[in-house]
Amino acid sequence: MKNLFTSLILIFFFTNLKSQDTKNQQPNFIIIFADDLGYGDLGVYGHPTIKTPHLDQMAYEGQKWTNFYVGASVCTPSRAAILTGRLPIRSGMTSKKQRVLFPDSKNGLPASEITLAEQLKGVGYNTAAIGKWHLGHKKQFLPTNNGFDYYFGIPYSNDMDHVGKANYKDNAEIGPEAISIEDFNVPLMRNTEIIERPADQNTITKRYSEETVSFIKKNKDTPFFVYLAHNLPHIPLFASKEFSGKSERGLYGDVLEEIDNGVGKILKTLKEEGLAENTIVVFTSDNGPWLPFKTHGGSAGLLRAGKGSTWEGGMREPGIFWAPGKIKPGVISDIGSTMDLFTTFSKLAGAKIPNDRILDSHDLGPVLFEQKASPRNSIIYYRGNEIYAIRLDNYKAHYITQGVYGQFGERKEHDTPILYNLGEDPSEQFDIASKHPEILLKIQALKDEHKAKLVAGKDQLAERE
Amino acid sequence: MKNLFTSLILIFFFTNLKSQDTKNQQPNFIIIFADDLGYGDLGVYGHPTIKTPHLDQMAYEGQKWTNFYVGASVCTPSRAAILTGRLPIRSGMTSKKQRVLFPDSKNGLPASEITLAEQLKGVGYNTAAIGKWHLGHKKQFLPTNNGFDYYFGIPYSNDMDHVGKANYKDNAEIGPEAISIEDFNVPLMRNTEIIERPADQNTITKRYSEETVSFIKKNKDTPFFVYLAHNLPHIPLFASKEFSGKSERGLYGDVLEEIDNGVGKILKTLKEEGLAENTIVVFTSDNGPWLPFKTHGGSAGLLRAGKGSTWEGGMREPGIFWAPGKIKPGVISDIGSTMDLFTTFSKLAGAKIPNDRILDSHDLGPVLFEQKASPRNSIIYYRGNEIYAIRLDNYKAHYITQGVYGQFGERKEHDTPILYNLGEDPSEQFDIASKHPEILLKIQALKDEHKAKLVAGKDQLAERE
Repeated sequence: MKNLFTSLILIFFFTNLKSQDTKNQQPNFIIIFADDLGYGDLGVYGHPTIKTPHLDQMAYEGQKWTNFYVGASVCTPSRAAILTGRLPIRSGMTSKKQRVLFPDSKNGLPASEITLAEQLKGVGYNTAAIGKWHLGHKKQFLPTNNGFDYYFGIPYSNDMDHVGKANYKDNAEIGPEAISIEDFNVPLMRNTEIIERPADQNTITKRYSEETVSFIKKNKDTPFFVYLAHNLPHIPLFASKEFSGKSERGLYGDVLEEIDNGVGKILKTLKEEGLAENTIVVFTSDNGPWLPFKTHGGSAGLLRAGKGSTWEGGMREPGIFWAPGKIKPGVISDIGSTMDLFTTFSKLAGAKIPNDRILDSHDLGPVLFEQKASPRNSIIYYRGNEIYAIRLDNYKAHYITQGVYGQFGERKEHDTPILYNLGEDPSEQFDIASKHPEILLKIQALKDEHKAKLVAGKDQLAERE
Repeated sequence: MKNLFTSLILIFFFTNLKSQDTKNQQPNFIIIFADDLGYGDLGVYGHPTIKTPHLDQMAYEGQKWTNFYVGASVCTPSRAAILTGRLPIRSGMTSKKQRVLFPDSKNGLPASEITLAEQLKGVGYNTAAIGKWHLGHKKQFLPTNNGFDYYFGIPYSNDMDHVGKANYKDNAEIGPEAISIEDFNVPLMRNTEIIERPADQNTITKRYSEETVSFIKKNKDTPFFVYLAHNLPHIPLFASKEFSGKSERGLYGDVLEEIDNGVGKILKTLKEEGLAENTIVVFTSDNGPWLPFKTHGGSAGLLRAGKGSTWEGGMREPGIFWAPGKIKPGVISDIGSTMDLFTTFSKLAGAKIPNDRILDSHDLGPVLFEQKASPRNSIIYYRGNEIYAIRLDNYKAHYITQGVYGQFGERKEHDTPILYNLGEDPSEQFDIASKHPEILLKIQALKDEHKAKLVAGKDQLAERE
């Protein structure tokens, strides 16, 4: 009895010691990256019928960013941006000819690029990429050759390898009754091996969340980094039985509610394992909603347009940061970017920031932990290899506007750029260029400076087999 | 010393007794009713640059309703609806000819109507109307003749009694530099007396909140009802010095942030006075945003159109219910209406529901306290004295669509109504009438039943002096 008592005391002592110790450890990082999710698709960002209680709670306990951007308005370049901390024009992961990689693309993220996973692995992190990759499906381009110890997911978009008859492009609201996972011969991989083909997309969201929980549990004694890139709610939409038909928002809502449920499981695991306050969790998405797919596409809320465009709806996303006790809760309307995660996390982990290349990445630490002003005051909106727009503070100048997927009109170059104040006019409705020539000059100077220093990478998307 | 000790014990005993007692008391009610605020204008409803921390907190601690409606898309009838629990067609407070009351209108809310204030006064409540009235400016129509013990506010809209040269209608974004409170000779009243003319609109929002705090403190020992109807953010916009120029959203944001600040003060007072858990606070607005006024109008978020229309943006509003420990926190996507407050509050107060007239009011108590299903499953959208649309469960049929204020097109009657599923398609984009004739029939039956029973009240808005 006495021995049991002593043991209990000792267990208590070491448990507390460990918990104390944790505070000075390198923090863990989890990025949860949705696919084609719109700015307006979460409860806490204003959606009336998609229920996201776990993400709402995460936003309430952490920071809800309302001016958080991605590096491009489509998949491949946006993913290159978040992992390299650089505009995709620099890595060549954007292109005039092709906007994303395809199953017959020859190339992928160049080996010369340094990923956030490589940064963190270099200072002792265990790293996992779970979900969609889309930075090259050949072995040398896969996550396991880009700083990730472990990979479980699909190598490109879930609507590729299309073998079925049902055509989403002509029938935007084709439902699960007419389409099946067999229509898309997408492979599911573990590390470098294909383990399932076609991937069972009905259960894939659930499995990604479970893989994440499992990786956390296995790696709780070392610092870890999980890049969880859900391949949904990109079309075609699939949800597991538990969620199918449950959401008022229909299948799109089912999918998001399953993602939200996974977020809940991940946060619960962190709390149970005593890792919550030493793990920074970020939730965002790769680009705006794919609007032509009607109710199978999302909503950008009050922002204009969606995926593929350089209007706000294409490139502004929910951005939720969570680490209870560490991140100072609040709503942040300062500017941030997925590219900033590279520098922010590298610094927190004690990894050296590369000085042999231009980064487009800022340390958001002072905002996250002290709610100081963001060090980022601009966004450069590329479409392919052209600058379409630039935001400086609250002002955004459009040099070129162009619709996308048959919506929002033709390409137009503006001799005098269109100018919006995004603070007062978040929906980009009221051109104030004639009132503020001095701001246009400032933005032009920023553009000139950027272009003068720019060395564009070799186009990695153009070549196909 | 011993006496002091005994006294302290007694004070402690009675304080606790009182607090225990409070739980079984009739609850207090505060309705905070904004003017022309859009569904998308609060942080927690998705606005990126308007900071509403107190309303966000209120929504988090209470219930955030995402399908909460007003009784009409413009001011006067919407106010008649919330106070009588009846569609304005029944009281005659809507009209084909005039949509609202003006300073030269002859009439107001008929004496035969029973207001929520009269209901509550009848069972011992102290009652106050603070802010905009707009149900008749002549003495017999004022709040003090409609169940309110106290009135402090303006009798109609803040853009009426226009004597200035600056014309908002031709210059939607006219700013405070060109417009002043003297341009609007609106009277400020206390009870039935004019105490200030023109009302100092720069400080009016702040004064409304302060009057509310003061009324709470004076009436903390009796059950009370405050109807706080801010006259802003209806144009012309004014904010006090403390808030002017502070919001990224410009003057419109300044105004909302001052309203939010007032909400914070009211909730703080309730907490300090030990009244929080026995006071139900509701925040909503009278109708959607007045869009032609550009950045001086609000945003309906992802909802279509705004004020004056029977699209969702005109009649769906934020609806936040708060009473910590009493109201079960959560996001509620069931249907509710401002008209339901009449029955809900009457029942909680122990007031008899009138049985000599048709009410359009449901008891939301089971939703508020137990998160049971809402007893309301329909909304009838009137414009003037015509039914334009009807919602049944998640389906909304438009019989007539019509733009407003020069926006959103001409009046059109639809032989086959347009049908939307608002759960899947909250932005009213994808007509599914051809797929669901059976739902159109159900809605038509509801319309026929409503019309068969309807006795329209005598038009109170048409006559002007």
